[in-house]
Amino acid sequence: MSGKWKGFMPDWRETAPLAGSYRSIFKWGDPAGFKHPNEKLYREMKEVFGLSDDDFRQRRREGDEAVRLARTPRLGASHVQAMARIVGEENVSTKDYDRLRYATGKTVEEAMLLREGKPGRAADLVVHPRGKEEVRAIVKYCARHRIPVYTYGGGSSVNFGFRPAKGGISLVLSTHMNGIVKLNEENQTVTVQAGIMGPALEGALNDAPSKLRAARPYTCGHFPQSFEYSSAGGWVATLGSGQSSTYYGDAYNLVLSQEYVTPAGDIRTREYPAAATGPKVNDILKGSEGTFGVLVELTLKVFRFMPRNRKRFGFIFPTWEAAVSATREVSQGEFGMPAVMRISDQEETNIGLKLYGIDGTFLDTLMRLRGFKPMERCLMLGTSEGDASLTKNVKRNVKRVCARHGGMYLTGLPTKLWEPGRYRDPYLREDLQDFGILIDTLETSVTWDTLHKVHREVRAAVKKRPKVICMTHASHFYPQGTNLYFIFIAKMERVKDYVAMQDDIISAICASGGSVSHHHGVGRMLAPWIEEHLGKGQMDVLRALKRHFDPAGIMNPGGPLGLDLKGKDWRKI
Amino acid sequence: MSGKWKGFMPDWRETAPLAGSYRSIFKWGDPAGFKHPNEKLYREMKEVFGLSDDDFRQRRREGDEAVRLARTPRLGASHVQAMARIVGEENVSTKDYDRLRYATGKTVEEAMLLREGKPGRAADLVVHPRGKEEVRAIVKYCARHRIPVYTYGGGSSVNFGFRPAKGGISLVLSTHMNGIVKLNEENQTVTVQAGIMGPALEGALNDAPSKLRAARPYTCGHFPQSFEYSSAGGWVATLGSGQSSTYYGDAYNLVLSQEYVTPAGDIRTREYPAAATGPKVNDILKGSEGTFGVLVELTLKVFRFMPRNRKRFGFIFPTWEAAVSATREVSQGEFGMPAVMRISDQEETNIGLKLYGIDGTFLDTLMRLRGFKPMERCLMLGTSEGDASLTKNVKRNVKRVCARHGGMYLTGLPTKLWEPGRYRDPYLREDLQDFGILIDTLETSVTWDTLHKVHREVRAAVKKRPKVICMTHASHFYPQGTNLYFIFIAKMERVKDYVAMQDDIISAICASGGSVSHHHGVGRMLAPWIEEHLGKGQMDVLRALKRHFDPAGIMNPGGPLGLDLKGKDWRKI
Repeated sequence: MSGKWKGFMPDWRETAPLAGSYRSIFKWGDPAGFKHPNEKLYREMKEVFGLSDDDFRQRRREGDEAVRLARTPRLGASHVQAMARIVGEENVSTKDYDRLRYATGKTVEEAMLLREGKPGRAADLVVHPRGKEEVRAIVKYCARHRIPVYTYGGGSSVNFGFRPAKGGISLVLSTHMNGIVKLNEENQTVTVQAGIMGPALEGALNDAPSKLRAARPYTCGHFPQSFEYSSAGGWVATLGSGQSSTYYGDAYNLVLSQEYVTPAGDIRTREYPAAATGPKVNDILKGSEGTFGVLVELTLKVFRFMPRNRKRFGFIFPTWEAAVSATREVSQGEFGMPAVMRISDQEETNIGLKLYGIDGTFLDTLMRLRGFKPMERCLMLGTSEGDASLTKNVKRNVKRVCARHGGMYLTGLPTKLWEPGRYRDPYLREDLQDFGILIDTLETSVTWDTLHKVHREVRAAVKKRPKVICMTHASHFYPQGTNLYFIFIAKMERVKDYVAMQDDIISAICASGGSVSHHHGVGRMLAPWIEEHLGKGQMDVLRALKRHFDPAGIMNPGGPLGLDLKGKDWRKI
Repeated sequence: MSGKWKGFMPDWRETAPLAGSYRSIFKWGDPAGFKHPNEKLYREMKEVFGLSDDDFRQRRREGDEAVRLARTPRLGASHVQAMARIVGEENVSTKDYDRLRYATGKTVEEAMLLREGKPGRAADLVVHPRGKEEVRAIVKYCARHRIPVYTYGGGSSVNFGFRPAKGGISLVLSTHMNGIVKLNEENQTVTVQAGIMGPALEGALNDAPSKLRAARPYTCGHFPQSFEYSSAGGWVATLGSGQSSTYYGDAYNLVLSQEYVTPAGDIRTREYPAAATGPKVNDILKGSEGTFGVLVELTLKVFRFMPRNRKRFGFIFPTWEAAVSATREVSQGEFGMPAVMRISDQEETNIGLKLYGIDGTFLDTLMRLRGFKPMERCLMLGTSEGDASLTKNVKRNVKRVCARHGGMYLTGLPTKLWEPGRYRDPYLREDLQDFGILIDTLETSVTWDTLHKVHREVRAAVKKRPKVICMTHASHFYPQGTNLYFIFIAKMERVKDYVAMQDDIISAICASGGSVSHHHGVGRMLAPWIEEHLGKGQMDVLRALKRHFDPAGIMNPGGPLGLDLKGKDWRKI
């Protein structure tokens, strides 16, 4: 992964976390999975942060200690027994490790604190329901006894989305409620239990002829970076977007119908692709982040799986402005949308070319010869999917548009180099933090006419702190705009400093005209900005819905979406 | 319009309604606009209904009487004066004619009753606000004094959507609030006042270079049959669909942001094409049919206007099943979606070929020779739009798919013959009613796996009554399903009989698995079916939203969406 090194290579950790340790909770993904920085990124960091090889000789605060919680569960034994009667003894746990594991997402802040052996608020009880009837019984019981319920899918939240801020129950859907209920080939839909994980869903669809006795293979079309460690229910609850969303649509567009268990009763919506039967309750449930009820089942669109038709393309542009203009023209050109489309700004291009191994190759030489200068040039990569005639048409038109905007065609190579690592970048985080460097991301939606302002002002906010790498890309395109995804890397070891920087960046995003989030959701972390962003009128509607679904306030209480946020500091709830 | 007749031609009316008459209210569209049945349709009706030319010698109950209302306005003079102070004396009216005109939609039932000189409930006062600030003042005043407010856009409702069942104010947005606020070419959006009518919007967009100083011409992509007589606000409030929705999307998909004035305050949503900032309040406002508040301004997507790229196609299929399978394959084929796509069942094909003038031509002969038999064969027509490379690709693939399903290519001729009349079919209604024949429509959404059952059972319900023509088409396509649009023609003169038939058809639609509506909305007419259709869980959400936005129940009270419907008979409210 880290390639061949010529000089000193830090002792990147290659051992899985110890069972029961803090590290086993905060480490991303496969316990035995790693993606180390390559030498070029390592050198870049040393240079930017003013570090030497000596700073990378000793890993520290790796979080190998066994989890121990100071606080014992506050839920009475009678409640624990009641839950055990519903789901079976083997499906409840009050063990410290489980209580913390199913309370912890994937924020940098959580990882930093767990490295210091400082767990945040844990669940009192972990419950693994075996079906929607059990969820119904649990929600009913908890509503009666005012016990908070936090729904846990894949656990990949990067904004404290399911953190049990008020204790209570962590309801884990991915343990048992992870099956395919029905593939409907005529309608091209699949009905699944909400806890199904990306690879299980996509695997079954790709192998539908053998696994589901189908006539054809299918794809779900949804590939977020967290794909391997996120659940279908989580995609919808947080309004996620996949890397091919430009063609397939966001999670919001992929969901035809849903079934929720709420304290106010059950809701099952109908499967029509469109209807004029009043405001779409099916749609208002999406993005509710566990605050209205528990999403137990959903019906998703599926698409024909035609990987042989996929076309790849890559371009280098002289400037960020040219890359943006080209993608706007592609998005508005009405010749068909690409599946993946991704443009990197100057700084990300600079590092990306190093990471993908293009830097220093003949392509790099060619680019330089043609006048595409480092820290000015911007990379674009992408694919087209669908019927072969469409993918060909999209690629041909993308090439035409990019040429008109000064883009040089780089073949499909950059995309080919990007693809194998598309889900693996998060693994870098642990390596860097082992040496006191943090890497994190924030992201936002923009319309075309706000894009440059948001990009400029957010970068300025990041760069106010010296020695921070800030890479930006746009990767989800619509005729009316796109997203901006900021990756920042800094040498920073105090949680306080990190949170202050993060707050500055979020504030800059909102002040410059971006949305609070494009596809990470709001959770608790972004909640303090949400009311100002949406306005009181919209927030009042969300609060009215909350009161309707959950009058006792037991569903994911304590901050998310700003629904019950008093003051700005959700961390103190 | 009626072509050359060989035999007796009824004396179709060719004079505009008298000013101030009932007919001037119920007649569709341009007062001087007509579309008469042609001789083939006339003969078909005579045959099916067992009529002779004698039945068509004398028009009757034409509704030429002057409007007179029995009931005087019940709104006190102080309220009228208060409204006049807000909008100006010239923008309020308590005249009988105005009170009825702005209370009446385009249902067959209303037309039948007005022909008998029986107006339904009228507004007490008609108010024409000049801007959103005035709407704000009106809503505030009405909330304080509990005066019902009914929003009137284009007036084309076919389900009593804005009928002032509780009296009060008819708020007419199309008089003054009908302008373009801003065209944003970078984002490809247009912001309009809600009362703008289809032709004004599309005309300005098509001529954007001269009218809006734009670099390019645009299209709104939304062409419902009511296009000429409906407003942008109405499209969204009722969740309408245009004839090219298969490519451009339904009104629901076209709206990026909106501004509402509600009794609970104003809401202005933001313009991002996507965001993960919690449940989408912008979307839950759509389809609220005036019950939450007044939609005053909206931002719509626009598309590049490229009429030269339009491709037309037409096919004849041996059976309805083959036509359905072909459109499903087109909708799921991922080579790009057609803009218009429309398949007619056996009975509609039979009449359609007569209406379009294909019956008896060389094409008809060719079809018969090739074995496409009348009352078995089914017509498909359509277009593709977008970039030239896409329209070519779509048409080529449509031809490939249709050939595989036994379809014979008919060139673009059927579409060319259909296009000039695409907005004009509603004019037929007045001609037929002048001779005691009614023509009406009901429509529904279906998934592919329910389509045939709904079609079969609804036709059976219609045909339970002898002597009824029932034509069906599907015209809005999605990968997961389509709509079914039923047109029925019957010799029927009593309102009671008509309503009984209509109720039977709606019940058959719902019982067989269709939705209450695909794009007409719910209004009052379909409200009795909505709770059973959506389920109590969804209805409780809509009622909670209603309570939030409009606690005093002043916005469009008396039945719509089933929000305040007691019992089944909204007509008695």
